[in-house]
Amino acid sequence: MQINFKALSKKYQTPYYIYDFDEITKNYKELKEAFKARKSLIAYAVKANSNLSVLKHLKNQGAGADCVSIGELKRALKVGIEPYKIIFSGVGKSDKELELALSFNILMINVESEAELKRLEILSKRQGKIARISIRVNPNIDAKTHPYISTGLNENKFGVDVDLAKRMYIYAKNSPFLEAIGIHCHIGSQLTELSPIIEAVQIVASLVKSLKSLKIDISFFDVGGGLGVRYKDEVLIKIYDYAQAILKSLYALDLTLICEPGRFLVANCGYFVTSVLYEKQNSNKRFVIVDGAMNDLIRPSLYNAYHKIQVLDKTKDISKCNVVGPICESGDFFAKDIELAQTKPQDLLIIHSAGAYGFSMSSNYNTRTRVAELAFFRGEARLIRRRESFEDLISHEEEFL
Amino acid sequence: MQINFKALSKKYQTPYYIYDFDEITKNYKELKEAFKARKSLIAYAVKANSNLSVLKHLKNQGAGADCVSIGELKRALKVGIEPYKIIFSGVGKSDKELELALSFNILMINVESEAELKRLEILSKRQGKIARISIRVNPNIDAKTHPYISTGLNENKFGVDVDLAKRMYIYAKNSPFLEAIGIHCHIGSQLTELSPIIEAVQIVASLVKSLKSLKIDISFFDVGGGLGVRYKDEVLIKIYDYAQAILKSLYALDLTLICEPGRFLVANCGYFVTSVLYEKQNSNKRFVIVDGAMNDLIRPSLYNAYHKIQVLDKTKDISKCNVVGPICESGDFFAKDIELAQTKPQDLLIIHSAGAYGFSMSSNYNTRTRVAELAFFRGEARLIRRRESFEDLISHEEEFL
Repeated sequence: MQINFKALSKKYQTPYYIYDFDEITKNYKELKEAFKARKSLIAYAVKANSNLSVLKHLKNQGAGADCVSIGELKRALKVGIEPYKIIFSGVGKSDKELELALSFNILMINVESEAELKRLEILSKRQGKIARISIRVNPNIDAKTHPYISTGLNENKFGVDVDLAKRMYIYAKNSPFLEAIGIHCHIGSQLTELSPIIEAVQIVASLVKSLKSLKIDISFFDVGGGLGVRYKDEVLIKIYDYAQAILKSLYALDLTLICEPGRFLVANCGYFVTSVLYEKQNSNKRFVIVDGAMNDLIRPSLYNAYHKIQVLDKTKDISKCNVVGPICESGDFFAKDIELAQTKPQDLLIIHSAGAYGFSMSSNYNTRTRVAELAFFRGEARLIRRRESFEDLISHEEEFL
Repeated sequence: MQINFKALSKKYQTPYYIYDFDEITKNYKELKEAFKARKSLIAYAVKANSNLSVLKHLKNQGAGADCVSIGELKRALKVGIEPYKIIFSGVGKSDKELELALSFNILMINVESEAELKRLEILSKRQGKIARISIRVNPNIDAKTHPYISTGLNENKFGVDVDLAKRMYIYAKNSPFLEAIGIHCHIGSQLTELSPIIEAVQIVASLVKSLKSLKIDISFFDVGGGLGVRYKDEVLIKIYDYAQAILKSLYALDLTLICEPGRFLVANCGYFVTSVLYEKQNSNKRFVIVDGAMNDLIRPSLYNAYHKIQVLDKTKDISKCNVVGPICESGDFFAKDIELAQTKPQDLLIIHSAGAYGFSMSSNYNTRTRVAELAFFRGEARLIRRRESFEDLISHEEEFL
């Protein structure tokens, strides 16, 4: 069943996001299946696309949630994801966030610094609880991805190095308020090379072994997320190879495997649909101006990211152009120097691979209301987030006038 | 009177933005005063900081508004800015936006393409109105600023070249539904060199003269905005020199001058206040992790922008560090390799020059609620935007679960 972009644009107006839920299921199943040799938990990285209906759909497949703020944690709980399938990560958790996470009784809190470990100990003591934790190990490995989404080098803010991790595990063992049940590493996002992942897993696996000799028993091995997707012509890691390599590195260790995919599950299931407003020619440059903008999808501007763009039902008179939005800065573009069919006002442009880090990063810049989100599931489309109104935008300011 | 960051942080929690309204007044008056030799309109570029109370404060000083979306236009009207002081600019205005702008009877619509001019003609005919317009001339001048905020080159999407502008003025003259009353140019933002501005103004002034010979009389000359501010050690254009050079270029032309400052009026009047969560050391790198993040202030990440950062009341044990937020990407930073005093949890960091393109570009990335905004006016601080709650974030999604 194909998405009828035309009819939906008429019904819901442009711009909007639409996510193909059947595709999400397919991706989820592929990954889950690849790890079938072991107990595994696929904890969806909520930050990629945090719409409640997307979360609910993944919950229905059996997914857990990897959360990086108390807000994400509340979203996960809201749609009924079982607390024992929820992990709370992040380099900067506030007291309030840690306290709430403790009270929600989630699977584990993924600790990213010594200071956080000691803070958590104080807070769990205060609640009369034992905090279940994992420690994020930074294996000092170059993930070979965009610097903004590379996280596994010591020069990044994430995790702690192997030596410190070991000391922290020993500290936790000696604390009546901490229980180390997991270990974690994540070297970056949009990974397309297997070898850095394997290298990282091996470093962490060897730490697990040395902890075992100290009678510190880890039950959960969290390999992070970061599986790359095809935006353009990336050669991807095969999921089977990925899983096999990880399982092999963990040979003889009795661990439940946790994987935290975000982009992998949702990126290519999403489309951003926008209408042409005008075309214009500035000296020799052709511009296709659309009603969507960088506030809706900031990836091209922020990461210089590529998104495939297609003019719906038009393939003629192809020439080079920039696809740009109405926002008043030159950084507001979706693509530069791409080949595109000649367009007319109201033509629809489909921006592909927009399911991850699209809506979740959107803003109200230029007082633009955030767009609607739709789900496409078993041949039917339905609204999963209402378009914002002007009144929504001023609702927190108006009373102070 | 000094802002008491400590007391305010206790009362309103961190992070938050605070804007010094008295400083805004000072900047406004300096600019208005510089142009006193002529009739002038200072039309505040709403996109820089669109908080209703900020707009209202500027309206009280006599400012008009430069708007780039119908949302900004509604904001301006909401606080009582007179329609005859409002300009509507932007490369991509939708039919609905143009229709509303026409119905609001604003000073003029700043047209940025031939297609838009013809569309506007149709729409004003349909409303039985005459659309007052200006045309944005792209003078093909390098503003020597960040490529994302440079707008005056033909390779940018903005405006039309001089020849096309001329043809469009002639077209408008012959249309019963269009009335060209203004001319506009804007070559970029955060400008620190006077010569490109003057060059642009001269090109446009010479177009005004040649239009005069065609019996096309322009009443408003809009020099755009873009005046740079000091973030670090920029040597700025002196306002007096700026005004004098513009006035000189317009010698013998009977025009009302319009200027569209945004950043100039508000950037250095704003502070982003955030608390330290932890410090951590990764190999040799010191990280100060704070409760604010790139979703609150994206300029460092998006433009590699510099913001001065100060630890409140602490000046000892200074060493190099990165100031980073809790968001799960390496792109989440406020500063890299800056010298900063040793901090403890709860210490306050003041991020300077955050009054422009701060809150207005903020998002809910990582399900982080947007922060509160405060005004500091005549020695008193007050809330001008409530902090968002988790419930606010899901309010457009929950009903579809």
